[in-house]
Amino acid sequence: MGGDFAPRNIVAGAFEALRETGSRFEVLLVGPEALINEEIKSRQPDNLRCGVVNANQVIDMDDGPTAALRKKRDSTIAVGISLQNEGKAEAFISAGNTGAVMSASTLILGRVAGVGRPTIGAFFPSEKGVCLLLDAGANVDCKPQHLYEFGVMGSIYVKEMFGFERPLVGLLNIGEEDSKGTETVREAYKLLKESKLNFVGNVEGRDILQGKAHVVVCDGFVGNVVLKFGESVPGFFKGMIRQYVSENIFRKLAAVFIRNSMRSAFKSMDYEEHGGVPVLGVNGVSIIGHGKSTPKAIKNMILKAEEMVNKKINTRIQEALSGAV
Amino acid sequence: MGGDFAPRNIVAGAFEALRETGSRFEVLLVGPEALINEEIKSRQPDNLRCGVVNANQVIDMDDGPTAALRKKRDSTIAVGISLQNEGKAEAFISAGNTGAVMSASTLILGRVAGVGRPTIGAFFPSEKGVCLLLDAGANVDCKPQHLYEFGVMGSIYVKEMFGFERPLVGLLNIGEEDSKGTETVREAYKLLKESKLNFVGNVEGRDILQGKAHVVVCDGFVGNVVLKFGESVPGFFKGMIRQYVSENIFRKLAAVFIRNSMRSAFKSMDYEEHGGVPVLGVNGVSIIGHGKSTPKAIKNMILKAEEMVNKKINTRIQEALSGAV
Repeated sequence: MGGDFAPRNIVAGAFEALRETGSRFEVLLVGPEALINEEIKSRQPDNLRCGVVNANQVIDMDDGPTAALRKKRDSTIAVGISLQNEGKAEAFISAGNTGAVMSASTLILGRVAGVGRPTIGAFFPSEKGVCLLLDAGANVDCKPQHLYEFGVMGSIYVKEMFGFERPLVGLLNIGEEDSKGTETVREAYKLLKESKLNFVGNVEGRDILQGKAHVVVCDGFVGNVVLKFGESVPGFFKGMIRQYVSENIFRKLAAVFIRNSMRSAFKSMDYEEHGGVPVLGVNGVSIIGHGKSTPKAIKNMILKAEEMVNKKINTRIQEALSGAV
Repeated sequence: MGGDFAPRNIVAGAFEALRETGSRFEVLLVGPEALINEEIKSRQPDNLRCGVVNANQVIDMDDGPTAALRKKRDSTIAVGISLQNEGKAEAFISAGNTGAVMSASTLILGRVAGVGRPTIGAFFPSEKGVCLLLDAGANVDCKPQHLYEFGVMGSIYVKEMFGFERPLVGLLNIGEEDSKGTETVREAYKLLKESKLNFVGNVEGRDILQGKAHVVVCDGFVGNVVLKFGESVPGFFKGMIRQYVSENIFRKLAAVFIRNSMRSAFKSMDYEEHGGVPVLGVNGVSIIGHGKSTPKAIKNMILKAEEMVNKKINTRIQEALSGAV
């Protein structure tokens, strides 16, 4: 029931995933049973492996995560995530309230041994292909140890899911020298430098898009600001260019030709394309997508979830961190 | 001697400013006398009001500000700023080391009464015309009172220099609710809300370009990251679009027509266009420009400096803050 187009896009995306993979896995749709069944029936489920789990409450996009989880115990998010504890599912995906999915994942699934703070990141396009910035808003106040853990978790995710053998990990700072930044950041620098990670040192705001690292570590305040700033860039440019182009018929014609280039450039800023963002550091798989997720985006998230299960990301994280605390 | 093209662009820009205004003011060029005089002579100074002040040391762009100021007492930055204390100048502009100009301005000119931390900001284009984000890197650790002061100083600057009667002031945060963010930010929220400023509350990363406020307040760590991220956006898009366009002759032709629109959109991300950024909260006028400043940018900075003197920005700041501490 999460996001702006539920349950329609969610069910449609689930069906796409099942059809494309020949029902390689089962999808359990969590929500008000009658409503979900109606949505399913209208789509000819054939022999797709698709079940329904009833849950009658919905956490809205603007609900406060903690209060919502306390009050809405029968929410689709809480019920859906709990399926992993009950052995009925191996992964959860949602286009719903990010904070609620993050909190519920941590509370219900628990933290991986050695992880102080589970995290969610944000994907940016970069000249190296992709840059995972984390934390992107879940952890506002971070200790050096947390920033170090983000580096480990991000490095494992990027290695396993994107195939970079020794991912470059950078620490977001306001200059390259190790004397720069707050005390927390300077301490995190030491931890990262002493670690087994492929640490490239401090990176600056410009290095995210310029691809100086595959993983960029920061606290959730900075990460969230950069994420939202980045998301606003395409719309801003589009508006400026639209205005300019509309002034003249030649420009309008010309715009048709390069429209696709603009689209692809702008699309690369859209983290939805990466199949949602994972909650890292919890005992289970939990993926959060954009509230406006299309069926295709939902399908991508389901496939990513399957991949995360198969690649045992959390086991890798536990192996890397459980000895370190 | 500051920046990548000194003294050439600096002298050229000074001459442009003098010619354009009919020598409405005098420009003192600070640097190694022989070198500067040679540069002046090659440009037919006619009757322009232009003097030279000798200073033999240069602080490089990658010098650490504090150490450089201690070791290089005869630097162009230190000598140039000191002219205001000696009553020989009313403003200073530089395309040199930002940190050194910031530190020297604070040390030599002193803080305006009531200001705990002088600040430098960054200009962003926005749907409201302009957004001044401050602090942009001078103050990494900020107390709530400092953030409040940034709001006051930014509001005065934007009002006086851009003509917005009651500038909208926002506090950069990770959500709109007043419960969001770090303790420092939540405390700053209260101070700003109780103040006489036209406070719009919390704003998020996306609101900078979308123009929710004329002034956006944050600590220098976040501000610097956003500033540098923003500066890297045009280059990133240009690279992507150039690659796409080069694949096909029609796209190449089309690109010619809308090239100007791209240029103007990208240019609006360039803070140099705004005539440098002022150091706010010091007893004097000090403006810092980009290291790659063109003669035109230098001219704009000189004109901005004149305007700041005429509009008595620092007196306004003192009036607003001296009773508040």
